Amino acid sequence: MFFFHFIGHALRRQTAGQFGPDLAKKLSQLVKMEKNVMRSMELVSRERMEVAHQVSVWGEACDEDVSDVTDKIGVLLYEIGELEDQYIDRYDQYRVTIKSIRNIEASVQPSRERMYLTFDSYLICKGSDKALGKQKLIDHITQLKCKDPNSSKVMVLEQELVRAEAESLVAEAQLSNITREKLKAAFTYQFDALREHCEKVALIAGYGKHLLELIDDSPVTPGEARATYDGYEASKAIIQDCEDALTCWVKDQAKVDVNLSSRAQALSMRRRSTIRNHDKGHDLTNQDLPMDHYSWGRDSNQKSDMYEEQFEDVEEASVERHPQAFRETDSCPETIVA
Amino acid sequence: MFFFHFIGHALRRQTAGQFGPDLAKKLSQLVKMEKNVMRSMELVSRERMEVAHQVSVWGEACDEDVSDVTDKIGVLLYEIGELEDQYIDRYDQYRVTIKSIRNIEASVQPSRERMYLTFDSYLICKGSDKALGKQKLIDHITQLKCKDPNSSKVMVLEQELVRAEAESLVAEAQLSNITREKLKAAFTYQFDALREHCEKVALIAGYGKHLLELIDDSPVTPGEARATYDGYEASKAIIQDCEDALTCWVKDQAKVDVNLSSRAQALSMRRRSTIRNHDKGHDLTNQDLPMDHYSWGRDSNQKSDMYEEQFEDVEEASVERHPQAFRETDSCPETIVA
Repeated sequence: MFFFHFIGHALRRQTAGQFGPDLAKKLSQLVKMEKNVMRSMELVSRERMEVAHQVSVWGEACDEDVSDVTDKIGVLLYEIGELEDQYIDRYDQYRVTIKSIRNIEASVQPSRERMYLTFDSYLICKGSDKALGKQKLIDHITQLKCKDPNSSKVMVLEQELVRAEAESLVAEAQLSNITREKLKAAFTYQFDALREHCEKVALIAGYGKHLLELIDDSPVTPGEARATYDGYEASKAIIQDCEDALTCWVKDQAKVDVNLSSRAQALSMRRRSTIRNHDKGHDLTNQDLPMDHYSWGRDSNQKSDMYEEQFEDVEEASVERHPQAFRETDSCPETIVA
Repeated sequence: MFFFHFIGHALRRQTAGQFGPDLAKKLSQLVKMEKNVMRSMELVSRERMEVAHQVSVWGEACDEDVSDVTDKIGVLLYEIGELEDQYIDRYDQYRVTIKSIRNIEASVQPSRERMYLTFDSYLICKGSDKALGKQKLIDHITQLKCKDPNSSKVMVLEQELVRAEAESLVAEAQLSNITREKLKAAFTYQFDALREHCEKVALIAGYGKHLLELIDDSPVTPGEARATYDGYEASKAIIQDCEDALTCWVKDQAKVDVNLSSRAQALSMRRRSTIRNHDKGHDLTNQDLPMDHYSWGRDSNQKSDMYEEQFEDVEEASVERHPQAFRETDSCPETIVA
């Protein structure tokens, strides 16, 4: 069965990216692969909840201390499953943002093609690259101009060249701006979600270890009775502490600090100041232009939505994030509201 | 395909625990379910590595800054996949420890059955519980003694009762000791592994965010060139910092501290002192006994290995942790040695 599942993914991988424009091929494939990751994470999450239930069910028949502690461990494991489920929702947000880069890539493709087409229609640059084609077209226009400065053919050629170039330049700027904006947004979102998820699960693991202390693991001789279990309140208090810690978790007080070495810090600062200075210089030289830089991003955001449908294959559309049929099979020993 | 996989697990769940003694049924099922979790985690790990590769492949065709940063993000994502793989290995250790509880449960079953059989052979306690059966047998012996104090039947009955009781008491003590010892060991191992994994992944997420700062996301106007990329050294330094942080991670300096509230702390301490006091009292009263408590654990550890085979179904035995056929399809953009 495991093999089937794997082959299933392998097949999807092969077909992924075989639709949609060439430029967006690689990202189309990435988006499909991320869907596979999400599906597998959903399996882990669901199975973790089932394990949580089973740990609790097994413990029921044991002595009081083992029974209580395994029941509470079941609660913690179930909570991990729930956190995994929440993380998948956020992972989907990341994936949707990556999709928007794929969409702008797909939307830029036609203007690139028109640019080539303009040259091709004069049979100048067939098989050549864009820059070479453009140069040849300019040379061709110059030649025509020398022969007859008032040729109507020259004017038509020049107008077409200007139009195609303008469209292409705008499209490429949109692609550059949106790709960077969305790439940064997508991975910022993904890394933030990952950090939050990991820190919360690490917290749960810590509280789980406190629970284990309540088990009486001192060995007994045959026939000897164990001390009466007096840990019910303690285990409840630990679960309560865990719940509070999860609720109080805030990103700004993330425990796992990531400090760069002074070298990495200096190099990163140099890079950021390069970006800032270039941007500042640019702002000054273009201060009289009526054009708002940010409009490139905004305009194409709207446009890129139009390209959404062409990538949605039937399979993807038919799979819901939370299939109710599966959710009903989940059984929860107890739930933390975090 | 997803459905097939799920049904596959559902079927395994139904058949799991239908072999092996009754006592070990629930844990047998848990052990099977944990195998499912491991398989799904393996899928996530493998697919994460594929995603890492694809992010890097996509970025290749982009501008220098995007290309370099996505390549390094690929390295980090691949590292997460590798950490997940290591975590699965440790998860398997946890599962093997849970299995050893299942084995002692299975090994205790025959002595419980013999205890019942002893009573049953005299048709005294058919359908009754153990304690009641034992009481009835004792009453029966008392009656026989009153009739004829020197009856040979009484002697045989008494000897059989003592033998069955002794065997059962030893078996139950072994079960109690080993269950607690192994349960604590299994979940301590699992929670430690989980905490280490989570803290390391949180570290990687943090370094990933530093990488994103190197992308020039200031918007450009059509035809405008971006600042030359000067972040190669910075991105390398960030990856190096990340590598160092992962290598230097030690459990004792775990960043996500789990502090109990004073109430939970007090209650846990009360519980631990109950265990300690009972254990101490027991040690004093039994100080002259030649029997080493710990030998119960050790003896049955050896015995429990004998029960290993009966639970291994063909499927489980045939699936390797690291199938080479799959590993070959993994492609790694670059690897951190952590």
